[in-house]
Amino acid sequence: METAEVIRTRRSVREYRDEPIDPSLLEELIELATLSPSSYNMQPWEFLVCREDATLRRLRGCAYDQPQVTDSAVTVVVLANLDPAAHARPILEDSFEKGYIESEQALERRIERIEGKRDDPLEDRRLWATKSTSLAAMTLMLAAWDRGIASCPMEGFDADALCREFGIDPEAYDPVMLITLGYPAEDAEDIVRERKHRRAVEELCHYESFEPDR
Amino acid sequence: METAEVIRTRRSVREYRDEPIDPSLLEELIELATLSPSSYNMQPWEFLVCREDATLRRLRGCAYDQPQVTDSAVTVVVLANLDPAAHARPILEDSFEKGYIESEQALERRIERIEGKRDDPLEDRRLWATKSTSLAAMTLMLAAWDRGIASCPMEGFDADALCREFGIDPEAYDPVMLITLGYPAEDAEDIVRERKHRRAVEELCHYESFEPDR
Repeated sequence: METAEVIRTRRSVREYRDEPIDPSLLEELIELATLSPSSYNMQPWEFLVCREDATLRRLRGCAYDQPQVTDSAVTVVVLANLDPAAHARPILEDSFEKGYIESEQALERRIERIEGKRDDPLEDRRLWATKSTSLAAMTLMLAAWDRGIASCPMEGFDADALCREFGIDPEAYDPVMLITLGYPAEDAEDIVRERKHRRAVEELCHYESFEPDR
Repeated sequence: METAEVIRTRRSVREYRDEPIDPSLLEELIELATLSPSSYNMQPWEFLVCREDATLRRLRGCAYDQPQVTDSAVTVVVLANLDPAAHARPILEDSFEKGYIESEQALERRIERIEGKRDDPLEDRRLWATKSTSLAAMTLMLAAWDRGIASCPMEGFDADALCREFGIDPEAYDPVMLITLGYPAEDAEDIVRERKHRRAVEELCHYESFEPDR
């Protein structure tokens, strides 16, 4: 589908048909998500893909029992790696080989700089990783809708419970959001009803200077 | 352009032709960005659009003198509103009118719940607003590339300096990222060179259970 049409027609949908998502299509969607930009190209995202009934039930238990989790064909837990330098060396060595970094000295300096970010406060590392990971999450939702698969991003979950349930170290990874995925039910409320309100461009767009609350 | 092609061919580009972006096209791109989903549909994003030379020079001064800011046709400062309930009432009244919220009582409870988030620690409100705002940022970059406009998301700036320079209250708004925009130079390094490394899907995709560092 045309990009603008995908963006315009995408809706957050919570009701799905009982139809699986082809595993290779899902992989393709996740690969597209990984083409998103990220800070220093560090790609701090990890995707925990839940599609077995038992796994989805466990996940729903961490998400205030919201039915769209078990109704989805797949729910992806989008995780952010809180170690900024987790993948620094292979990623930057590749950039050096491709000519983006001019010398081995510059490469080592770059790796050191990113390794230095490990000492940033947890709060800063969470923000840093959340930004890039959210970019990938948006790409995933648009790529999915382009292939007829609806999604709903969810922040309504108990991150501590989720980490415990799935053995995730909350000091190392932050669950940023859940994304439920599935072919939309024909009569899904979120499609049948008029799109929810969007703030007007004139209200949120500030030219050359910032004046809040216009 | 087809969505998957836009996602696959988009690159972060720092070199631009000396060609303006039509103001109505820019507005259209920002409108598309606002169709992104957000937590509770609260749309905490604001866009400070810089396109005059003098404004871009001031912005570059807050961004470690990186030339792509003044080389761009437009640089957008993507801001996150740290008041979760800033727009709660009009947005939720609209949802009530459209049938998403079943009663006036439920509407008032919903507004109260979001207003309660004002008491969340600043750290939580920053994370909350950053997530939704980053979703809109990604949509903006894909919508732009679809229309031939390249972008580069930038986190390399001094947020305190930027807030001072543009009179933004850092307790009220968080500058999440800058997005430089412009028609790409034909010989832009970021396009001519091979795409930078991406982590393999097998590495970052975890099925049913999470095993870090595979």
